[in-house]
Amino acid sequence: MKRLKGTNEEIARILAEEQVALTQQNITVEATVREIIQDVSQRGDEALREYTKAFDGIEITDFRLSETAIQSAYNTIEPDVLAALKHAAANIESYHKQQMETGFEDQPVDGVIRGQLVRPIERVGVYVPGGTAAYPSSVLMNVIPAKIAGVKEIIMITPPQQTFNPAILVAADLAGVDQIFQVGGAQGVAALAYGTQTIPKVDKITGPGNIYVATAKKEVFGQVGIDMIAGPSEIGVIADETANPAYVVADLLSQAEHDVLARAILVTNSEKLADAVEIELEKQLKQLPRENIARPSVENNGRIIIAKDKGSMFALMNLVAPEHLEIAMENAYDYLDQVENAGSIFLGHYTSEPIGDYYAGTNHVLPTTATSRFSSALGVYDFIKRIQYTQYSKAAIHEAEKDITTLAYSEGLQAHAKAIEIRKD
Amino acid sequence: MKRLKGTNEEIARILAEEQVALTQQNITVEATVREIIQDVSQRGDEALREYTKAFDGIEITDFRLSETAIQSAYNTIEPDVLAALKHAAANIESYHKQQMETGFEDQPVDGVIRGQLVRPIERVGVYVPGGTAAYPSSVLMNVIPAKIAGVKEIIMITPPQQTFNPAILVAADLAGVDQIFQVGGAQGVAALAYGTQTIPKVDKITGPGNIYVATAKKEVFGQVGIDMIAGPSEIGVIADETANPAYVVADLLSQAEHDVLARAILVTNSEKLADAVEIELEKQLKQLPRENIARPSVENNGRIIIAKDKGSMFALMNLVAPEHLEIAMENAYDYLDQVENAGSIFLGHYTSEPIGDYYAGTNHVLPTTATSRFSSALGVYDFIKRIQYTQYSKAAIHEAEKDITTLAYSEGLQAHAKAIEIRKD
Repeated sequence: MKRLKGTNEEIARILAEEQVALTQQNITVEATVREIIQDVSQRGDEALREYTKAFDGIEITDFRLSETAIQSAYNTIEPDVLAALKHAAANIESYHKQQMETGFEDQPVDGVIRGQLVRPIERVGVYVPGGTAAYPSSVLMNVIPAKIAGVKEIIMITPPQQTFNPAILVAADLAGVDQIFQVGGAQGVAALAYGTQTIPKVDKITGPGNIYVATAKKEVFGQVGIDMIAGPSEIGVIADETANPAYVVADLLSQAEHDVLARAILVTNSEKLADAVEIELEKQLKQLPRENIARPSVENNGRIIIAKDKGSMFALMNLVAPEHLEIAMENAYDYLDQVENAGSIFLGHYTSEPIGDYYAGTNHVLPTTATSRFSSALGVYDFIKRIQYTQYSKAAIHEAEKDITTLAYSEGLQAHAKAIEIRKD
Repeated sequence: MKRLKGTNEEIARILAEEQVALTQQNITVEATVREIIQDVSQRGDEALREYTKAFDGIEITDFRLSETAIQSAYNTIEPDVLAALKHAAANIESYHKQQMETGFEDQPVDGVIRGQLVRPIERVGVYVPGGTAAYPSSVLMNVIPAKIAGVKEIIMITPPQQTFNPAILVAADLAGVDQIFQVGGAQGVAALAYGTQTIPKVDKITGPGNIYVATAKKEVFGQVGIDMIAGPSEIGVIADETANPAYVVADLLSQAEHDVLARAILVTNSEKLADAVEIELEKQLKQLPRENIARPSVENNGRIIIAKDKGSMFALMNLVAPEHLEIAMENAYDYLDQVENAGSIFLGHYTSEPIGDYYAGTNHVLPTTATSRFSSALGVYDFIKRIQYTQYSKAAIHEAEKDITTLAYSEGLQAHAKAIEIRKD
């Protein structure tokens, strides 16, 4: 892992440069994706069938997955996996229920009512990748918050397979997906955004996917809402001399095994710990089945940042703004108020990050590449809308007339003023 | 205005087609904008000076607007405008304070703590257009919610002018802007996203602008957060036979005067009202100073939709999902529960939409082109982040071990499982 050491300003400059490089856009597939989207929006199912044959090598007559296929997945899923999914779903539900919002109303002066309604988004589409990146846990993480928000209809799409992973179908069913369609890629995203003869048009699309899926989501944004464009996974660990190097390394590697582009960043005020981590890293890497992914990941993107004191550890990690943040310190809870930017925080020596990936109930769909500076984990708040309302009585509007028309005239918008003045009579 | 009449399904189909046309992307300026952004991100202030000279025709040595310039605006602003801005600011503040969120924490089982922190975004950039589109009311609407959220630093940028509208500078000062820089266009957006020698890099950019500004915001999204890409203004009016046609028309025109692309849509169950509105429309249009804008707007984009009953009026308007929604009916408040999609609702015969533009305190930065299906008015919630946290004791992680490792192994992520298992010792 590359070691960074210096003043906070020097390290901050390097982190800022690295962050810009991370978010530079990949525009290579844009033209292809735009063509697919336009075609699907015009020709619907016919276009979908052609792209699915071309890209997935499968001829589909009916995109809709039958109720029988979903129910038979319960017969083939491993019982342990089924039990674990049920426990995880219960935890995700109990955590996210706390995010539910209600509206408000006030009457600031006589004759005036102001308020805010909270309404669920009506129909949501969830993209679930195929092949090895098909994670049942992600199905739960995307669907359960939507369900709690009160979304009326949840449509899932996933690329066609000869044999679907039963855990994916069971997770969808447990979480409350209403319909599943076997279609993927940019064509699947286009189908959700514009609707086809068989696939209903949705209001918002969530869920991860490859570069085609991510680019398609960006392109259809505006026509529908989208969640976020996720980058490679990241873990930041703040550790002092009390940390166990073996635990720290195991957690760094749990992110590094995802992807050669994943980032594992340790910030510590202890050079002794940094040295121990590097020795332990080599030891654990050799034992790892996915060493071929984790090794280039830590070698290219791994960082050990040496901070001069505890305050600097937090200041520098706030610049990293990691997706996952572990605080491997005694009394970690007491340092919560020093965290400004992070997707999800794991406190103390025993709260290993994979607890959050699968089990604790917090969401694992998180802002990457320093976007936790301005965005948050997927949550119930992503599946609702807030609608303002106002009511003025005749007396109240006359009371406010002078101020309103003064501003309207000063902005040169006479019809705005007129709409108030006409109500004098 | 074009009249639509038929079954709900027939009208729904037409509305869906119109909505797709509205959101089709304008990609003509993308290449230019990308070049400007890259140049500014690399050369900073030097590039800014060149673009400002080329596009605004002004040579700038110092982009920062002096404290003296801001204070002297108080001497030139009309006293009535100053008073109105102060009243509006107070209303905006009292409404938006109700949107403040707090975190939560629970202890679902022994040894487990889960929670959510709420943190303000650290630094926000607000874009304020120049020329005739410089609205002091928009400055208040963008800045006050950020301030309430607790944003530490608010940077405003606006294109350079020979003489700035004093109301813009006063509004910025009243609302709590920390620094103002005189730079606009895609180059200004790039400066906020990447930072230059004099302009600080921000975490999120809000505020309206022309096609260059909107495209630039879309391009830098990811590097920074953005609010929304606003389209032309819209008003939807639901009116029954109790509505006053003169009021309805005045309100339709208050949006139509904004822009030839603005949309004014009336949904009514009364053909008698529809006829009266068309007669009144011609009468009021002729008296309007901005007739040259409002007339093509209503002729091209105006719609009168005839609904067969009250339920259909709301069902069809929910498909329109208008930015502004007026309910011009007796007991309008009682119909709130029928609204699913709208940015801001104005209730009853006296609550004219311009009340919300300037005064009531609800936000006037609203989702357009049917995006209220999945998004909301600008609010305090746009200037905060929610950060999850979890703490598991040693006993609690052992309790959860089997479920977590079962899921990790089933997804083929061995390092995830290992990070849990290593904590046995």
